Amino acid sequence: MWRLPRALCVHAARTSKLPGPWSRPAAFMSTLLINQPQYAWLKELGLREENEGVYNGIWGGRGEVSLEMGKILVEGVGEVQEYVDICDYAVGLSRMIGGPILPSERPGHALIEQWNPVGLVGIITAFNFPVAVYGWNNAIALICGNVCLWKGAPTTSLISVAVTKIIAKVLEDNNLPGAICSLTCGGADIGTAMAKDERVNLLSFTGSTQVGKQVALMVQERFGRSLLELGGNNAIIAFEDADLNLVVPSALFAAVGTAGQRCTTARRLFVHESIHDEVVNRLKKAYAQIRVGNPWDSNVLYGPLHTKQAVSMFLGAVEEAKKEGGTVVYGGKVMDRPGNYVEPTIVTGLGHDASIAHTETFAPILYVFKFKKEEEVFAWNNEVKQGLSSSIFTKDLGRIFRWLGPKGSDCGIVNVNIPTSGAEIGGAFGGEKHTGGGRESGSDAWKQYMRRSTCTINYSKDLPLAQGIKFQ
Amino acid sequence: MWRLPRALCVHAARTSKLPGPWSRPAAFMSTLLINQPQYAWLKELGLREENEGVYNGIWGGRGEVSLEMGKILVEGVGEVQEYVDICDYAVGLSRMIGGPILPSERPGHALIEQWNPVGLVGIITAFNFPVAVYGWNNAIALICGNVCLWKGAPTTSLISVAVTKIIAKVLEDNNLPGAICSLTCGGADIGTAMAKDERVNLLSFTGSTQVGKQVALMVQERFGRSLLELGGNNAIIAFEDADLNLVVPSALFAAVGTAGQRCTTARRLFVHESIHDEVVNRLKKAYAQIRVGNPWDSNVLYGPLHTKQAVSMFLGAVEEAKKEGGTVVYGGKVMDRPGNYVEPTIVTGLGHDASIAHTETFAPILYVFKFKKEEEVFAWNNEVKQGLSSSIFTKDLGRIFRWLGPKGSDCGIVNVNIPTSGAEIGGAFGGEKHTGGGRESGSDAWKQYMRRSTCTINYSKDLPLAQGIKFQ
Amino acid sequence: MWRLPRALCVHAARTSKLPGPWSRPAAFMSTLLINQPQYAWLKELGLREENEGVYNGIWGGRGEVSLEMGKILVEGVGEVQEYVDICDYAVGLSRMIGGPILPSERPGHALIEQWNPVGLVGIITAFNFPVAVYGWNNAIALICGNVCLWKGAPTTSLISVAVTKIIAKVLEDNNLPGAICSLTCGGADIGTAMAKDERVNLLSFTGSTQVGKQVALMVQERFGRSLLELGGNNAIIAFEDADLNLVVPSALFAAVGTAGQRCTTARRLFVHESIHDEVVNRLKKAYAQIRVGNPWDSNVLYGPLHTKQAVSMFLGAVEEAKKEGGTVVYGGKVMDRPGNYVEPTIVTGLGHDASIAHTETFAPILYVFKFKKEEEVFAWNNEVKQGLSSSIFTKDLGRIFRWLGPKGSDCGIVNVNIPTSGAEIGGAFGGEKHTGGGRESGSDAWKQYMRRSTCTINYSKDLPLAQGIKFQ
Amino acid sequence: MWRLPRALCVHAARTSKLPGPWSRPAAFMSTLLINQPQYAWLKELGLREENEGVYNGIWGGRGEVSLEMGKILVEGVGEVQEYVDICDYAVGLSRMIGGPILPSERPGHALIEQWNPVGLVGIITAFNFPVAVYGWNNAIALICGNVCLWKGAPTTSLISVAVTKIIAKVLEDNNLPGAICSLTCGGADIGTAMAKDERVNLLSFTGSTQVGKQVALMVQERFGRSLLELGGNNAIIAFEDADLNLVVPSALFAAVGTAGQRCTTARRLFVHESIHDEVVNRLKKAYAQIRVGNPWDSNVLYGPLHTKQAVSMFLGAVEEAKKEGGTVVYGGKVMDRPGNYVEPTIVTGLGHDASIAHTETFAPILYVFKFKKEEEVFAWNNEVKQGLSSSIFTKDLGRIFRWLGPKGSDCGIVNVNIPTSGAEIGGAFGGEKHTGGGRESGSDAWKQYMRRSTCTINYSKDLPLAQGIKFQ
Repeated sequence: MWRLPRALCVHAARTSKLPGPWSRPAAFMSTLLINQPQYAWLKELGLREENEGVYNGIWGGRGEVSLEMGKILVEGVGEVQEYVDICDYAVGLSRMIGGPILPSERPGHALIEQWNPVGLVGIITAFNFPVAVYGWNNAIALICGNVCLWKGAPTTSLISVAVTKIIAKVLEDNNLPGAICSLTCGGADIGTAMAKDERVNLLSFTGSTQVGKQVALMVQERFGRSLLELGGNNAIIAFEDADLNLVVPSALFAAVGTAGQRCTTARRLFVHESIHDEVVNRLKKAYAQIRVGNPWDSNVLYGPLHTKQAVSMFLGAVEEAKKEGGTVVYGGKVMDRPGNYVEPTIVTGLGHDASIAHTETFAPILYVFKFKKEEEVFAWNNEVKQGLSSSIFTKDLGRIFRWLGPKGSDCGIVNVNIPTSGAEIGGAFGGEKHTGGGRESGSDAWKQYMRRSTCTINYSKDLPLAQGIKFQ
Repeated sequence: MWRLPRALCVHAARTSKLPGPWSRPAAFMSTLLINQPQYAWLKELGLREENEGVYNGIWGGRGEVSLEMGKILVEGVGEVQEYVDICDYAVGLSRMIGGPILPSERPGHALIEQWNPVGLVGIITAFNFPVAVYGWNNAIALICGNVCLWKGAPTTSLISVAVTKIIAKVLEDNNLPGAICSLTCGGADIGTAMAKDERVNLLSFTGSTQVGKQVALMVQERFGRSLLELGGNNAIIAFEDADLNLVVPSALFAAVGTAGQRCTTARRLFVHESIHDEVVNRLKKAYAQIRVGNPWDSNVLYGPLHTKQAVSMFLGAVEEAKKEGGTVVYGGKVMDRPGNYVEPTIVTGLGHDASIAHTETFAPILYVFKFKKEEEVFAWNNEVKQGLSSSIFTKDLGRIFRWLGPKGSDCGIVNVNIPTSGAEIGGAFGGEKHTGGGRESGSDAWKQYMRRSTCTINYSKDLPLAQGIKFQ
Repeated sequence: MWRLPRALCVHAARTSKLPGPWSRPAAFMSTLLINQPQYAWLKELGLREENEGVYNGIWGGRGEVSLEMGKILVEGVGEVQEYVDICDYAVGLSRMIGGPILPSERPGHALIEQWNPVGLVGIITAFNFPVAVYGWNNAIALICGNVCLWKGAPTTSLISVAVTKIIAKVLEDNNLPGAICSLTCGGADIGTAMAKDERVNLLSFTGSTQVGKQVALMVQERFGRSLLELGGNNAIIAFEDADLNLVVPSALFAAVGTAGQRCTTARRLFVHESIHDEVVNRLKKAYAQIRVGNPWDSNVLYGPLHTKQAVSMFLGAVEEAKKEGGTVVYGGKVMDRPGNYVEPTIVTGLGHDASIAHTETFAPILYVFKFKKEEEVFAWNNEVKQGLSSSIFTKDLGRIFRWLGPKGSDCGIVNVNIPTSGAEIGGAFGGEKHTGGGRESGSDAWKQYMRRSTCTINYSKDLPLAQGIKFQ
Repeated sequence: MWRLPRALCVHAARTSKLPGPWSRPAAFMSTLLINQPQYAWLKELGLREENEGVYNGIWGGRGEVSLEMGKILVEGVGEVQEYVDICDYAVGLSRMIGGPILPSERPGHALIEQWNPVGLVGIITAFNFPVAVYGWNNAIALICGNVCLWKGAPTTSLISVAVTKIIAKVLEDNNLPGAICSLTCGGADIGTAMAKDERVNLLSFTGSTQVGKQVALMVQERFGRSLLELGGNNAIIAFEDADLNLVVPSALFAAVGTAGQRCTTARRLFVHESIHDEVVNRLKKAYAQIRVGNPWDSNVLYGPLHTKQAVSMFLGAVEEAKKEGGTVVYGGKVMDRPGNYVEPTIVTGLGHDASIAHTETFAPILYVFKFKKEEEVFAWNNEVKQGLSSSIFTKDLGRIFRWLGPKGSDCGIVNVNIPTSGAEIGGAFGGEKHTGGGRESGSDAWKQYMRRSTCTINYSKDLPLAQGIKFQ
């Protein structure tokens, strides 16, 4: 089975060579697109006008019709590439996982740490990374020997179906039961059922902190396991010695990439007072050059928000920021074009502890703050509830290591001279505090998908008892 | 600071050379014992007639007066030895912990996994291992760079005070603040406060599943971390090819050691039908030879239960077992002697799924069952809620590896030809399912006391963005 | 570059779908075969009637014309599959290799173990595994960041050229210089030059102990590194409780597979006296059923020896065994058919320390010995100079762990209930003593292809000196 | 046995509390010192006027009378502390060493990497670290399960005897045979015998490259294992942005510490041309303040050379440096005082490739060079034969990581902002190229003291063969 993930990746890589270009709005319904000649490849993926949303070896079920995510093309291709990469990684890993043989203190005894699959891994993913997050979980869970049950976001179920069609083909080609990678489309009711079901040994949940907490409590109530990837409220800190040629594009990319709808989106930018105004000015110029448009146009770098509700929340946050004393120095409005487009937005002048700045609004709003000293700004970085990603820009060696150390960032992702978003599959991805504590992708993330036994085998004919007790 | 645990151990080892023998009942109040000549060493430990139960650098507080645990002497000395051993282990470990440097895919970038202390580790321990469990947590937590706040069992607070006096001396000798290892004596109210307090970054709780679940939910509610060591309902399986010279003393030790009050106590004994009667007969003979008496007598191997309530629960379980069709073939009654002594008890004839056999009664009752096939008995081993310890006795190589594998035991401790109780500090200790999932002592248990950051340092002058995006 | 090995594997896997069947003798010259229609695929591999044998980005050089190895088809395909597998493994590994970050004792210091490529890896391979051994070295060396220079066996240079053509294509497709994987065909003069050349940072040598020792001394003379995979003299031990249904096919496969020309070939079979005669009889029957023939016939399991000299050595060994008191109970003669075919041979009755039994003859001769006790037979297993592979067949748990332990086998490969030959790429392959000590393929074999630095970075403004010295 | 190293350390730590002060020249013969009141503690160590130099459980043998090392007191105490520290480390390590259990591709098979002791470890140490180097080897070798045979330097055999007396006491107290840690005093003849003896499974040699090469060839000739710690020719590089408050004391300490007789002594100092003259001037001032005197005076930081020959070599090197164009800007002469005292010496103006600068002279001579560019100075650092230690002083983040990377230092020890000498026991100590490639003390150095077996256990009833072959 270990070569299965690689077969997945080869198949996926081939499928990912999508024809281009496209010219229709992202908001157009996929179920109609499929009948247009330039979207004929949707049929190649096995999609039809109406797609069944439950797969457990055979397809079944019927749900609401759905609109897809709306991210720009290069980001979409990037997601598929991450799935391919994690498959490559997982195939190698499949021959390495395992515990140590430890030296037993007792003569004639072997002490072994054995890792076994947990069993059934439930995977609930969010709309903003509808492919890669499942890929991370799916590839690692499989090579650990588990089976998967996936519930994608209700608003991206077409992608869930397309991915599962690919997987089902690979399983079939390898004479493996399709139920190894089951799919169920659905909403909160399905999620709740998965969280409460004792048969779901591990529930991997990516989504908001609010929902994630409920999920975690339901799973803990039954002593199940959860792997949580929840919200972030990520900061970039630019020190006085920072290279502004790195800072400005980094802040831009991290703040407006995926239209501010990444869990690793930079929402707070702390700038040393000596360079604050220059940075804000350069950012404004850079924002003015962002190419907005149809996300399927490969030249476009900025697309719409996911839903109408997201637009409302964007507007609400802008208003709240103003009330708390902030100044909108760029953007702040809904765009006058079809689809849920809003202006990428910069707000200055808020206090570091303004309540709106401590709130994760899934939209492209960047709050910019002044600071004076390393100590205070490290504390400000850590004062939010979430603990996902964080970056500093500096040339100072001592500062860099302090940033990595016990008094530095308390986040799961700690960067230097790169933005908050973007991660490599070789490193564990995830965050602390209200981000949930889960880790996915590389390093020893596989351990979450397995259970460990400390095994002692007495191969002698004697029986030494614990605490040196001689019983008879 | 890394040598601190070793200083602790050297100090503790010296202190542990307790003078003997003792001849007074365990039930005698320690606060009185201290005034008798043969217990003068209690004063050497810094204890007085009344002992303040709060230490955070200075001693303060005042609580209820307390009776101690009542375990036999060799077990008590064994506990102290475990503290010494874990200190040795931790000192070595202190120079090894840390993450890998991973190869970054991006030129000019370093990818580092950094581990930092979590901060404050709250440690709530149970009455049955009043020294060793704290030692496990304390030593590992310290070398990870944390500070500790300990709440021992309300019924063993004298031990908590004595241990903390030792630690305080070492800290003082090393010019370190005593608050590094604080102590608070108290009951459930203190425990609840620790579970809910956001400043307690990790709460390590050892105790019942019932209380542990509440603790875990309180900690999860605030997205804190918990390390749970809860109940067990541990089985020994004797196959037809088992060496009965190992089985009988193993079952005896595991069932009646610490008067059945270990989390790893064997409560269920599955015997292949072909040897069932012989094993029961040999067990009865062995039970008849157990030396009962004052736990401080070094020849005694069986002492009293911890409290009057424990005696009631013992009697209730025996009655319930009878109601469900069980036969008491040995013991079953309260002993006619001062203190909470009950007879070690064997019950046969219950169904494997009898409700009393699925209940953890903290008392020396062993339920013996017949089985026919490996497959069924592995399933019976796993059908209880708890997942702590488990043992098989067999000579069959294939069976041993199946027992260790995905279809074998689902416990955290999986033994072969040794009993369920007793563990080495080099291996991770803990269990799955309602046992809570925590791991203590050896292997990579230290990771629970630290938080991990995936750190990327861009040391070049370029800025490659995620998903291959070129933003400007 | 990390995905390069995977590209290699995908390319190789495609290429390995060789058309079949073939019906001509293996001894037929490949340079002629290429002009026959059924060998047209040789041209697809880029081979011509005469092939240049030096590649360092461009092809050049001219050497002697060459006959190929002569192993049976399934073994040949198996070798290619191993190359594919090690590529899969290496791609995953490429994102994991690296040292730990260790906790520094000095405040303000970081202690890092950094691994860097050694530079140029020279790889000298033997005739009997003309593809897989290079694959092991090549894939791991590449993902460690090295470049390779390969010298295959002079008698299999056509394979070397074919493999390098595949690699060159992949490098070219990825815009990488072909010299990353250079090839030089040639004999001992080239090998000596590589051993003595200071620019060859690591020399990986697979071949005889005799040549390997000279290579090792030449490399040591210049303080270079060597990775040696030399001879074996491997034993199988069948205890009285062994499953003979495993023993007989295992001994057969290990003794006659690749016509006895593997370094892991079983040459000594120790059988407990109680089952000795039965095992010999069953072996003779099994030997009689071996399908001999053209190695390219997929039904054939036994092909010719590699050269005329090998046939002479076979005959010499049989004669020597007779002189030392052995009885040829099966085979012993050259076959009456074209090509270097010899009869698979069984010799009984020798002393365990007979000099011929302590000599590695690269031919299908199996020496069978009687033994009485575990202790003596473990000692006999270890008494030869080589230390590559070894197997026991038993059901005894204690014996198995003793076999794995300090008083058991002193070989690099220690098997239980499987033969001496055959290994998984996930485990390190290689042996002790005169086998040379190198390890290839899985586990931490990659460390041999890298050099390690212990790095300390002082990021503070203070300077603590070693041994607590305060200098000024 | 694992607690044995700790017992050693506790015993050694107690013993190391030497009484002070001392006032007699180091050159005074210890065998006479022992009769003076202030050296009575030598008797406490078990030394007598004449000491037998062979111990293998009992003391025997008789050799030449010997003068000891002559290092300053704080360095001597530091060495003993290193022995204590490595014992602490080794005790912890003893419960962690071992290989992984790897996932087998074959159903019903277990794949285990087992590590066993090599057997007998021969340890040949040098005069300059007569305690610590043995401690490193001894502690790790012991917890790996080996026995040791030690030959110290002929000129420090009194120390060897004293250390072995301590060890013998601990072994005796633990009812272990003294031969576990045997000692033989002697010269090159003994060393040669150990190198050639097949019973010495691993020979750990610390000494000169010249002798080390001969040792390595003798050991390789018999396919034994060697662990080599040979010469160094270590450089410090001070870049234009270096903190000179770190550079000057670092260079001073590294160049004149142990009177230039460390393998990690800095012999070459590359200074950026822009700060060259300032650094030389500050060094000269610092050199003028070095407190010279009796090494047993705890205020003294600079003692004599080890022998008269060392003084001759010092003078020869100074002359040679002048001939090659160097200027002696400080020191250069023998001191006018009893004992082998020479002036700490600074030479400027040599070419980076001057032959004397490429020679390791075991004396306190520092060659100072100008450089212009990072690229050239990294190359100059690497152009010597040895590859032990190296340091840069800079604040430049990119430079630091390049220094650690494949194009940076090729040494085993790679430092930043600290000198070349001084190492922590948690990190592996040793060097590349003519330094020999061995690693001692921390990290995975233990692997050199063990042999590894890749073990496959078939616990099923089936027999899958390699390369997918179905034999019958």
